[in-house]
Amino acid sequence: MTLPPAAQRAFEDYPVGLKVVSKTHTVTEKEILEFAKEFDPQWFHIDPARAAASDFGGLIASGWHTCAMCMRLFFNEFLPEAGALSPGVDELRWRALVRPGDVIHVEVTVQDARITQSRPGRGVVSTYIEVINQRGDVAMSFKAANFILTRAAIGG
Amino acid sequence: MTLPPAAQRAFEDYPVGLKVVSKTHTVTEKEILEFAKEFDPQWFHIDPARAAASDFGGLIASGWHTCAMCMRLFFNEFLPEAGALSPGVDELRWRALVRPGDVIHVEVTVQDARITQSRPGRGVVSTYIEVINQRGDVAMSFKAANFILTRAAIGG
Repeated sequence: MTLPPAAQRAFEDYPVGLKVVSKTHTVTEKEILEFAKEFDPQWFHIDPARAAASDFGGLIASGWHTCAMCMRLFFNEFLPEAGALSPGVDELRWRALVRPGDVIHVEVTVQDARITQSRPGRGVVSTYIEVINQRGDVAMSFKAANFILTRAAIGG
Repeated sequence: MTLPPAAQRAFEDYPVGLKVVSKTHTVTEKEILEFAKEFDPQWFHIDPARAAASDFGGLIASGWHTCAMCMRLFFNEFLPEAGALSPGVDELRWRALVRPGDVIHVEVTVQDARITQSRPGRGVVSTYIEVINQRGDVAMSFKAANFILTRAAIGG
């Protein structure tokens, strides 16, 4: 199964079992440092020398940076152009370290999809999302929900 | 209860019931746009005119940006300088929109604190974290866990 182009994506395009595999993103030291200096300045995210001399064996990305990179890949390849608000996320786990040079991609599986009676014109799509590195390790996983407009609501 | 300076903070400084209230951060349109263009380019995060003409009534921050801003406040006022890795987060909820001009702060409450037998020298501190705006609305909340070194381990 594949999704139509982003401009045409509507609730009906996200059946249970749909699995989408994103393109890859190569993580750079520069972006790890930039994100961490602004938002998460723990030494193992911002000090390459100290990180290299520690048990970490080098710089690691902030877990929130991994979330942000995941969102970019998820947006590009899964979400409709009309947008999709989310009420939240569950069971977010940082499972393997993310380092400069890692090549990550996102795999999204639809676990539930239902129209909400209370709010016609949109449905809730529940997903399991994994960020996977070049060795096949799952670096991060979580469950998300997104409100997605129906085909009728987007006028498609 | 208050925490000692970041350099002295150890597991023993985080008893159950400890509540820490951060300083404030004023959210700007510039930073909402910068974050969203890089990581979450949905139109209600990156297009002020379209957002103003919509039901949103103006630009709103990416939920992942709210996480990142929360981490910065949490780092500054709660975490030890020695750092604190986290295995993950649960029940992350985006509960109120975050807009330019909002003045947010973070409130952190320790819900559990225990030494892990499997890994001497550190404990797990479990917290409930809220991002609160200038009207007292909870914009975001979640539960987190952090590994924090004991006083003996940091040599304090």
